[in-house]
Amino acid sequence: MSTSNVSPLAPASFPALPEIAGLRMSVVGAGIKSRKRADVWLAEFAPGTTIAGVFTRSKTASAPVDWCRAILPGAVPRAIMVNSGNANAFTGIAGREAVEASARAVADRLGCEPGDVFLASTGVIGEPLPVERMLAVMDQLVDDLGSADWETSARAIMTTDTFPKGASARCTIGGTPVNVAGIAKGSGMIEPDMGTMLAFVFTDVAVSQPVLQELLVECNEGSFNSITVDSDTSTSDTLLLAATGAAGNAPIERIDDPRVDGLRNALFAVMQDLARQIVRDGEGASKFVTVAVTGAEDDRAAKVVAKAIANSPLVKTAIAGEDANWGRVVMAVGKAGEKADRDLLSISMGGIEIAANGRSVAGYDEARVTGHLKGQEILIEVDLGIGPGTARVWTCDLTEGYIRINADYRS
Amino acid sequence: MSTSNVSPLAPASFPALPEIAGLRMSVVGAGIKSRKRADVWLAEFAPGTTIAGVFTRSKTASAPVDWCRAILPGAVPRAIMVNSGNANAFTGIAGREAVEASARAVADRLGCEPGDVFLASTGVIGEPLPVERMLAVMDQLVDDLGSADWETSARAIMTTDTFPKGASARCTIGGTPVNVAGIAKGSGMIEPDMGTMLAFVFTDVAVSQPVLQELLVECNEGSFNSITVDSDTSTSDTLLLAATGAAGNAPIERIDDPRVDGLRNALFAVMQDLARQIVRDGEGASKFVTVAVTGAEDDRAAKVVAKAIANSPLVKTAIAGEDANWGRVVMAVGKAGEKADRDLLSISMGGIEIAANGRSVAGYDEARVTGHLKGQEILIEVDLGIGPGTARVWTCDLTEGYIRINADYRS
Repeated sequence: MSTSNVSPLAPASFPALPEIAGLRMSVVGAGIKSRKRADVWLAEFAPGTTIAGVFTRSKTASAPVDWCRAILPGAVPRAIMVNSGNANAFTGIAGREAVEASARAVADRLGCEPGDVFLASTGVIGEPLPVERMLAVMDQLVDDLGSADWETSARAIMTTDTFPKGASARCTIGGTPVNVAGIAKGSGMIEPDMGTMLAFVFTDVAVSQPVLQELLVECNEGSFNSITVDSDTSTSDTLLLAATGAAGNAPIERIDDPRVDGLRNALFAVMQDLARQIVRDGEGASKFVTVAVTGAEDDRAAKVVAKAIANSPLVKTAIAGEDANWGRVVMAVGKAGEKADRDLLSISMGGIEIAANGRSVAGYDEARVTGHLKGQEILIEVDLGIGPGTARVWTCDLTEGYIRINADYRS
Repeated sequence: MSTSNVSPLAPASFPALPEIAGLRMSVVGAGIKSRKRADVWLAEFAPGTTIAGVFTRSKTASAPVDWCRAILPGAVPRAIMVNSGNANAFTGIAGREAVEASARAVADRLGCEPGDVFLASTGVIGEPLPVERMLAVMDQLVDDLGSADWETSARAIMTTDTFPKGASARCTIGGTPVNVAGIAKGSGMIEPDMGTMLAFVFTDVAVSQPVLQELLVECNEGSFNSITVDSDTSTSDTLLLAATGAAGNAPIERIDDPRVDGLRNALFAVMQDLARQIVRDGEGASKFVTVAVTGAEDDRAAKVVAKAIANSPLVKTAIAGEDANWGRVVMAVGKAGEKADRDLLSISMGGIEIAANGRSVAGYDEARVTGHLKGQEILIEVDLGIGPGTARVWTCDLTEGYIRINADYRS
């Protein structure tokens, strides 16, 4: 399932993440797809934890996504359980039954209701989830709570990922130091629409659910909703944020509480870090690409244009080929359908201005741009010259590696 | 620029196309990009010809597209001139001047106004068109009118195309036999939006311009606007349809004239044939894929879903890998954003039902589907089970060949 080659864009090592008070984790190998690895992860929260979530907008969402969406408003959150190797998507009534059975198995052992247990699944779509294999390891999974560290947890939820993804930040809330830490997985089928493939973020701050949900939606827009690998949106995108309250700060109850700023910054830093790590593990990726659009009619239009550039197969293959073919950026701006004026458009790569006023810049030095494209970190800047709208989107290049991985993913 | 390998999906040979009375053609090598081939094509019409056109909806349309759009309402059409090797797109004032100079050069020699000369350019975006090279061969191009056949003409407008594309049909209009014949080019940057890369269709029928335009728009929807190679929309998409009137039928003046039916059928047959040939020459294509969607809310929704499937890199790479990974079709339906109900959806490949009622069909024989996928003509059928909407879209698979071609197109 996963390739043995680690992405050339991977970080040197998994980061050191702080423990989150009020959170215990464990992993187990249930043999869902193969017998060789841990493929089920459980996170248990202390009583009083609040949780926020956003999910795929896919019209064919997976059974666990349906489950999470349904329980979110009424849950007294106690756990998240995730399996890799099978997405439990497009599995009909059997999929719903598998979800209910696994939530009940966790709830019975933790002494809560099934509707307090959040679930996510990732892997092949359309094959029945072998839930009996998960039920068979449930005692061990609960007994081992507290034994799994962040890296072990991040590895247990991987599919085609080539490296585990984690990030953390800290801040103070009214003098009380608090931590934010999270893990994510994702490599292909990545153009999240509300959530992302799978990401789980935790904090020990005390904060009410409505404030937590509002912060999550806000931070999601500039992080997971600003990345794309291949323009394909998963049936399973799930982003959950749990706050245990164990830090002991006076609870945050309102979004206009001045203490929210620090938390927002820490959350956004962790979420953007995780989102960018998913791009760095884009299937077949050899370059990490930042697309920055300014001067659009508004921020929404800027994002549509940035996504059109970031999703264009012709732009992405040109970058893979280290070819300063900026005409393809012009093409992508044109097809985006947002307000644009060819004669006001300007384009830079690696900070070097290439085109302005509807044509290439006099004396433009293509060799310098080609030099930039030979690196691993690529910057494409487009100014539409029309309005105040800006957006920043991250993607990777499109290489033969992407084709190889996806032409035989199941075999 | 073009690869030496002909697409495995190419027809065995260029078809025999009829002469269109009232039309003369010529080609010449102007050395726009290389000195080795004919790269300028001229088509001259008899007086009295009517013309209809549709063009790219790109916001960064090329200078010749701007020109054609501007002259279409007032033109007394006398000629179309096309060059390959340079798109004259994003070339600023120099691009507009090149267009005016070349239209004037043709007009002076044919004794008409510049605004009666239609132009199209295809090739690299963002480099100035070396119009002086075209002007230098203009006498020869006009002197040679009548010397170029259809295949020679179709070859002169090719860029990354691996084979020339032509099609024809005939019908009778009130007892008068008439002909329709056309040529097209296109291989990458193909998701036409109003027109296509470049297509030129001719008929000897006598028909008024408003009727011709209405027929063109109507037939375009189910032909060029129903294909996609890579979801990238060209700056240069141009489709022109010229009717010389030389067949001698009593002119068709109204769209509800009963004689329109035969013409519509002939036009649609030629345009759909040309559009499908463009897909057969999709960059790197090894399989020709038909996506048929039924049961959608309406025809528009059906087309959005069909395009989402046809444009999904994960669906296209699975087909390249001959992998019956129908879960990716579910994913694409889900991301399309149109009304869909997972539990009403059914999916077939090669006529073999795979999934229905929200899960895989009991006893589904994957080996038979894999057998179908090993062929060159792939059929994916999706029924949404919701309403009367249908659509049919054609595409090709996504292979390492696409990456190779586009990672070094300019070099």
